[in-house]
Order: sequence, then structure tokens, then C-alpha cells
Amino acid sequence: MLKLYHYWRSSSSWRVRWALVHKKIEAKFIHVNLLNGESESPEHLARNPLGYVPVLETDGSYLIESVAIIEFLDEKFLDMPLFPKNIFEKAYVRSLIGIIGSDIQPVQNLTVLDKYSEDAEKRKSWSQYFIERGFDAYERLCERTAGQFSLGDTLTAADIFLIPQVYNANRFDVSMKPYPNLLRINENASKLAACINSSPEKFAP
Amino acid sequence: MLKLYHYWRSSSSWRVRWALVHKKIEAKFIHVNLLNGESESPEHLARNPLGYVPVLETDGSYLIESVAIIEFLDEKFLDMPLFPKNIFEKAYVRSLIGIIGSDIQPVQNLTVLDKYSEDAEKRKSWSQYFIERGFDAYERLCERTAGQFSLGDTLTAADIFLIPQVYNANRFDVSMKPYPNLLRINENASKLAACINSSPEKFAP
Repeated sequence: MLKLYHYWRSSSSWRVRWALVHKKIEAKFIHVNLLNGESESPEHLARNPLGYVPVLETDGSYLIESVAIIEFLDEKFLDMPLFPKNIFEKAYVRSLIGIIGSDIQPVQNLTVLDKYSEDAEKRKSWSQYFIERGFDAYERLCERTAGQFSLGDTLTAADIFLIPQVYNANRFDVSMKPYPNLLRINENASKLAACINSSPEKFAP
Repeated sequence: MLKLYHYWRSSSSWRVRWALVHKKIEAKFIHVNLLNGESESPEHLARNPLGYVPVLETDGSYLIESVAIIEFLDEKFLDMPLFPKNIFEKAYVRSLIGIIGSDIQPVQNLTVLDKYSEDAEKRKSWSQYFIERGFDAYERLCERTAGQFSLGDTLTAADIFLIPQVYNANRFDVSMKPYPNLLRINENASKLAACINSSPEKFAP
């Protein structure tokens, strides 16, 4: 039985919860609080020396980093694939993942914001800057490729990175008006049962 | 013929140059200056709306994000693989890539530093903080897995992410003493012809 260590409001955690639910993989969800020191406890640092979530436990071993975990789940459990078979399209999905998973989220996660400033307004404007910069790029690329989802009409791993980031963007009052494609994808994906059943609200303590 | 748009000193560019040279893939290297506005020109923004390097041009299409490009090259050109075949080991390599490619480099790249502060000392101490945080985690994981390289004695994509980051760490005066495994891997990998022939020095204008 897989175990996922996660935090309800962490967008990286939501990505992996969504992948598990989408692929109908049985897993035990174990909540790790990022705000009260639990994620910096010796127990959690043994799972992930960075003190981050998500962490997947499989056969007594730990896997960290949401991209690595989702690629692992997709290679190990072949039903309901999250990547296209075509090599170029697969790379394109990974490039969209990179925009969210490298260029946006890591620059506006709690650790970085705590290092940057205690001032709520400064944290918000920093986050908005990097979210908007990344969303601009994502929107430009999607203009040519999106249908219902980021690549045509089939849900891919790119969408399960995008929607939790849109959720973060809303928390930081980012206007979504400049991103009609992202808005449409977000609306379509947010209706999916696997999105709803993996969402922060469903896992709020 | 593949074309790689890159900047000599960009660690993300070095990763892809190294993958190309390691796998003996013929490619044309086209330099894009990150410091004089060239990377923000309409020509380059058409290749990558983020204005970043590296960008791979293949059959008239552009691929962005070094992780996506390297996975693409490894799936398209099967000789000299950069990932293990075993699914768990492959995921482990990707988790090491995530530490460098999501948790360290994006938080201390030029765009983020320019947004953070103009003060050289502040930029340096910010960069040191995130490099050390990530290297601590990489070292802890490698204690159990490293031989000559991050995973045993075979070079993987994790190493071609690590070594350019050590190069950056040196530029920011990060002490490598707390990281004996990283030091050993760096020493071993730095001797490889493909590392030397893809290094910043070989591409300095």
C-alpha cells in the first residue's frame, strides 16, 4: 500500500493526490503540517531532508519531488496515463510542467516567502510577479495547443500542475483575465471528479 | 539538425549542452545573451515566451525547460542513456534533478535575483541560503546511493544537473566542505570529456 505524506493546502501535494485519484491508485494519505513544525520534525526529515511535502512511501522507500513522484506513478500504473505517447508531445507537457513546477511554484512557496519578507503585501506582490510571468508564458504556448485542456481535449499531467497553481493565484489575488485559455482549462478541469476529490477542501483538517 | 539556443554561463544551458555532447547528438549551438536584452528580443520570445534559455529547436518546433529537453533527447536518442531503466531508480534520479532544477536553480537565477535586490551581498547570501539548503538534502540522499556518481558508478541526468550547480555554488562562495559526496561526484564528473567540452569556458564569447 502506497502512503502519501502531504499538506492539505500545498499545491505540490494536490498534484500528487490528483494523480493518485485520477489513476485510481489506492493510497493512504498522511497529513504533515507545514505550519506548526511537524514538517521539520526528525520523523519527516527522515522522509525528506528538505522538510517538504509531498513524499511518497513505496515498499518502505521514500520518493520526493512531485514531478518525480507523478512520473513514477505513471510508469508503474499504466491505466489512465497522464502523458501523451508521442515523444514531442510528451516533452511539450513536461515543458508546461516546468513552467509551473520550476519557474512559478518554487519561487513563491512558503520557504522562499519566509526568507523574502514578513510583510504580507510584499509577499503578495512578489508572488503575483512570478505567477503572472509564468502564466503569460503558459497562455502563449496554450494558444496553439489547448482544447478543453492544455494539450487538446485529454487531461495530462500539465493540467494537474496548472489547476493547483490557479488556486494559489486566486489566494494571491492574481487577475485571470489576461489568460482566457487558462481560465477555460481551469473551468473544465475543476469539474472533474478526480480534481474535486483531491482538492484542498476535501483534505482540510 | 537540432539547434540549441543557450547562454554560456547559464547552468540550465550547460545541462543540455552536456546531454547533447554525452549522447553524441549533432546540434548547432546558438548563443543568446541574457545580459544585453537579446533574450528579451521578439525573436527569442517567439522561441520561449519566458525569455529563458535553453531552447531546443527540432523540426521547426521549439522545446523549452531543460528537464523536458533532456528527457526528450533521452527518449529520442537511445544510445548513452541518462536515466536508469529501473522505474524506482529512474524516479530517484528525477527527485535529485528536482532538488537542483526546482528547489535551487530557479530561486537563484538572474530573474529572481534582479527582482530580489540590486545589492551584491544580499544576492550572494540569498543564493548561498538556497544552494546550501538544497545541497544538504542532496548530500543526505547521496550518502546512501552514491558511488563515483550520484547513483552508483554510472553517470545519470542527476549528475549533469549537479555539476553546473556546483559551478554556480563556487561563484557564490559556497563552502563545499559539508558535502563530501557532492565533492567526490563533482571531481569524478568534471574529468569526463563531455563535461569539459560542454562547460561554460568552452562556450565563453
